Amino acid sequence: MAKQITDLSKLCVHTLTTKPWDLKQCVENYNAAGIPGITIWRNVLEGQNLNECKQILDDHNMDVVSVARGGFFPSVDAAKRQVAIDDNLLAIEQAAAVGAPVIVLVCGADGKQSLQKSRDQIREGIVKILPDAKAAGVKLAIEPLHPMYAGDRSAINTLAQANDMCEEINSDFVGVAVDVYHLWWDNNLQSEIKRCGQNQNLFAFHVCDWNVPTTDFLNDRGLMGDGCINVAQIRGWVEETGFDGYSEVEIFSDKYWATDQKEYLNKIKEAYLKHT
Amino acid sequence: MAKQITDLSKLCVHTLTTKPWDLKQCVENYNAAGIPGITIWRNVLEGQNLNECKQILDDHNMDVVSVARGGFFPSVDAAKRQVAIDDNLLAIEQAAAVGAPVIVLVCGADGKQSLQKSRDQIREGIVKILPDAKAAGVKLAIEPLHPMYAGDRSAINTLAQANDMCEEINSDFVGVAVDVYHLWWDNNLQSEIKRCGQNQNLFAFHVCDWNVPTTDFLNDRGLMGDGCINVAQIRGWVEETGFDGYSEVEIFSDKYWATDQKEYLNKIKEAYLKHT
Repeated sequence: MAKQITDLSKLCVHTLTTKPWDLKQCVENYNAAGIPGITIWRNVLEGQNLNECKQILDDHNMDVVSVARGGFFPSVDAAKRQVAIDDNLLAIEQAAAVGAPVIVLVCGADGKQSLQKSRDQIREGIVKILPDAKAAGVKLAIEPLHPMYAGDRSAINTLAQANDMCEEINSDFVGVAVDVYHLWWDNNLQSEIKRCGQNQNLFAFHVCDWNVPTTDFLNDRGLMGDGCINVAQIRGWVEETGFDGYSEVEIFSDKYWATDQKEYLNKIKEAYLKHT
Repeated sequence: MAKQITDLSKLCVHTLTTKPWDLKQCVENYNAAGIPGITIWRNVLEGQNLNECKQILDDHNMDVVSVARGGFFPSVDAAKRQVAIDDNLLAIEQAAAVGAPVIVLVCGADGKQSLQKSRDQIREGIVKILPDAKAAGVKLAIEPLHPMYAGDRSAINTLAQANDMCEEINSDFVGVAVDVYHLWWDNNLQSEIKRCGQNQNLFAFHVCDWNVPTTDFLNDRGLMGDGCINVAQIRGWVEETGFDGYSEVEIFSDKYWATDQKEYLNKIKEAYLKHT
């Protein structure tokens, strides 16, 4: 079991967790709440001047943990695969511009072809963008997604698969993001986290909770403590590998988005201290 | 790849697939449609005289493939675990009464405890009811459920876990039900089906499809061909083990339940011949 968390020094919040806020609101409110880390979803960068974004982040001493998200490589349509490559190259530029050391990859899947074919296209896509990522000093984190997303969002659905792909590509710039929501059910999780750590491939750790029952495939994630995931146990496994990065709170929730976001941020802090 | 299906001799339909119908309607309509196999969900046995049910089944030469469902063993509450045991003993009686050789187990999970604790309670529950199952000549099929049900419906979420449990219990009366809906995403599926077959543990094969997108956690299953599962490929793997039982059509679908069930039965037959 992980050591009890006693301060906020390793707390990061994803901008999409507080979806009603734009980047400036996120930065100002996270900073005012004593939250040092931010992962920036690209929707809040759209139409913004990236230099100004960087300035706002610096002015508030925010530590940019990562940019979310690249990926979505597979398609039966070659032209769409090229569009995805171009979009990932843009994501690398954006990450470099705001000082993010990592891009999280939601790898994608196309239900019109086999999972293996989609996985091959994911590997091809990562290999294609890797030179640009290296040149920009931005690492790529493969995020295995829950098997309920295998039809349309990711053909990489276990940490074992993500580890396999990292080891195959074998680059210091390709690792994984471990998200408790996607991986908590897997009885191989502890051993795969260990494997991931041994290979220096553990780039990011995302937290939230699995509501019982869960009522929506996308936007019914729980705050830590709301559901059935033993987040602290998984954090313990992650930290045993030597990982000393942030716990990133990534919650898509129609329920919480409908509430006052400042009060919600307080709840996030409480849940982080008590249930992470 | 499996050989093309050319007749209905191995087609079984679950009564819950045509939920609007009671047992008599299922039997009469399946028989009229040339469907030889039936898996009986216990809701259609409630309040019925089991001898009369058996008579209706015999009168229409229906082959009773299994009864669904037993299971739901885990709970943090010991009294509830005993209620589950009693209910499983009743299921065994019902299965014997209608001539079903197998009960499908949806094993259960309690989000208030760890998955491992739930798995331990599942094993304990199966071991407890096993003597009665043997005495009645009814086999027990552990059905691994999709990881999206790990919080509340089953702590057994991969075929590997189900195989592990079967091998641990090591009884001719305990095997598994392979359902494409729950297992299609797993890159170990082919090897685990092979393992299952080698141990004579493959008791049942369930088919449907995974809709893209899927909009409901329970009742948005697709008819074979509607979604992204390569059902024929998985049937091929199953048959390579020597399995020569039924393909059981098990579809929970608000969409299809709202349609004319006789027309739906025709669609099921077409989908079975074309996409299974």
